[in-house]
Amino acid sequence: MTHTLLSNAFLLAITLQSFGAIASQEPLPSWHNTQSKQTIMAFVKEVTNPNSTNFVKKSERIATFDNDGTLWAEQPIYTQLLFAIERIVALAPSHPEWQNKEPFASLLKGDIPGALTQSKTAVNDIVMAANTGMDNETYHALVSQWIKTAKHPVTQRPFTNMVYQPMLELIRLLQQNGFKTYIVSGGGIAFIRAWSESVYGIPSEQIIGSTVKRTYALHNNKMVIVRHPEMDFYNNNSHKVIAINTHIGRRPIAAFGNSDGDMHMLEYVSKGKGARLSMLIHHTDKKREWAYDRQSEIGKLDKGLDKAAENKWTIVDMRKDWKVIYPEPIKPN
Amino acid sequence: MTHTLLSNAFLLAITLQSFGAIASQEPLPSWHNTQSKQTIMAFVKEVTNPNSTNFVKKSERIATFDNDGTLWAEQPIYTQLLFAIERIVALAPSHPEWQNKEPFASLLKGDIPGALTQSKTAVNDIVMAANTGMDNETYHALVSQWIKTAKHPVTQRPFTNMVYQPMLELIRLLQQNGFKTYIVSGGGIAFIRAWSESVYGIPSEQIIGSTVKRTYALHNNKMVIVRHPEMDFYNNNSHKVIAINTHIGRRPIAAFGNSDGDMHMLEYVSKGKGARLSMLIHHTDKKREWAYDRQSEIGKLDKGLDKAAENKWTIVDMRKDWKVIYPEPIKPN
Repeated sequence: MTHTLLSNAFLLAITLQSFGAIASQEPLPSWHNTQSKQTIMAFVKEVTNPNSTNFVKKSERIATFDNDGTLWAEQPIYTQLLFAIERIVALAPSHPEWQNKEPFASLLKGDIPGALTQSKTAVNDIVMAANTGMDNETYHALVSQWIKTAKHPVTQRPFTNMVYQPMLELIRLLQQNGFKTYIVSGGGIAFIRAWSESVYGIPSEQIIGSTVKRTYALHNNKMVIVRHPEMDFYNNNSHKVIAINTHIGRRPIAAFGNSDGDMHMLEYVSKGKGARLSMLIHHTDKKREWAYDRQSEIGKLDKGLDKAAENKWTIVDMRKDWKVIYPEPIKPN
Repeated sequence: MTHTLLSNAFLLAITLQSFGAIASQEPLPSWHNTQSKQTIMAFVKEVTNPNSTNFVKKSERIATFDNDGTLWAEQPIYTQLLFAIERIVALAPSHPEWQNKEPFASLLKGDIPGALTQSKTAVNDIVMAANTGMDNETYHALVSQWIKTAKHPVTQRPFTNMVYQPMLELIRLLQQNGFKTYIVSGGGIAFIRAWSESVYGIPSEQIIGSTVKRTYALHNNKMVIVRHPEMDFYNNNSHKVIAINTHIGRRPIAAFGNSDGDMHMLEYVSKGKGARLSMLIHHTDKKREWAYDRQSEIGKLDKGLDKAAENKWTIVDMRKDWKVIYPEPIKPN
């Protein structure tokens, strides 16, 4: 028994040293020590301090993140739309009817802007044709494979390296402080799930997104979940609040977004009682990323900027608050 | 430092002793050592054994449980329907129109069977009128309060003591072996969430159930989630598989149900590759609970019994497999 106790004491000492090492590392190393970082650190300290009136027990420490433009780049076009466009091109040989049918015809002639603006339903038509008509496991494998090889059209980086390093650190900081971190995205739930665990460290069941209609049905002699070309739930604006209610059933205490589509989620969080953190990522860095807000077609941030002050939302200035944008060095897919 | 280490060693010894106490306790103490228990134990051993070809990593250890009739009693009538009936009676003074409107009129005359069978939509009409028209937080508080005082009409037990002790032990065994345990119920998701954490040890975000339409809207001068009297998603039959896909995005490796409404979920699990556990709770205990299956209006189990053998589903015989049905002694609410 003495021997065991001594060994355990030794192990314990090792463990304590390891904790010391973690504690001594500066948190959020890719963030400049500006107001944004200080706001995050103060919030985390407050809600995890058992002596604070704002202490929040672990089960209630829920943080929700938008994805496109909040956790990874969304310019010049959403990643899932690029996936869809590439897939339409790949599928074209078995769809001769697309040659004379918009928006596919324009797309196959290489006129992407023309295709996307053909009609009000053009983007939806392309996304549905590319992301459905197969079972869910096949789709998962397809996206997993694509994300391993596809490159961003401007930076030529893998898309999994178009994630924001400061946000990866923020996710990790919250997780280390007992938070359950969720993605609440307008993107397809199954698209994100194909890579979220390896890229963000966020598991499948903590992804909330848009869904297509699915049925449990016999397909190629197997009972599978079949994906149909019809929207089931579009997870944007106030729908994000409803989806949070459906999936989580608790009001988050922290939320992160970057566009007007995230306003309702941020408001839902900031109107809760106690210490709350609602943050907007403002794309201000033309040199290292993109600069856009009120006039942008993608990730428009207009009303959100106006409402930020009265609601005490923190605006992250990418240019001033972040030391780096993307992970360096670039990790292979 | 020496002093600290010694103290820690002492604490560690205490902790190890506690673990020893847990480990030496017979698992599933309320289960007889019959085929059902042996099947559960063999499955858990197999999927948690790193040297087994059927080993399953923790993130994939998902178990899904139906609620009514699987985790707690559903006779003579679903608990949520009793809640609804009581609430209609309580609300009646402010709804004079109900006196002449079915199914409310029959209900208010005390004719419950007559009310429920008035029309095809009678049950839905009662449930909708009772469970909506307020914000989500008010509803949560209402159900939480009701469940603390309401008693089962036959046994006079609190409903929270109409749960099955052997199933509580099964949930705990799976959790202790790294499983994430979910409820996948035809009942209302918000109804279950009001008490699932304290009764089952299953948190809000691991409850999947039926939903009503909700909007994020201004209500009594506050932005809240308002519950509307219209079904959004009815979580039964093959819909349970779709809901599992939406909420979890992984195929569970274990599923537990008791009626034909759980067949698709059990099939979805048992058709997966590797060691899988699909179980049907068969209500065979007229003396201690209820005995019903093929002819029952509530919790009908007919096709499920026929399909069990070919699909290698385990049928739990409540009378023969369970030493006790409910927790003893009865815990106060």
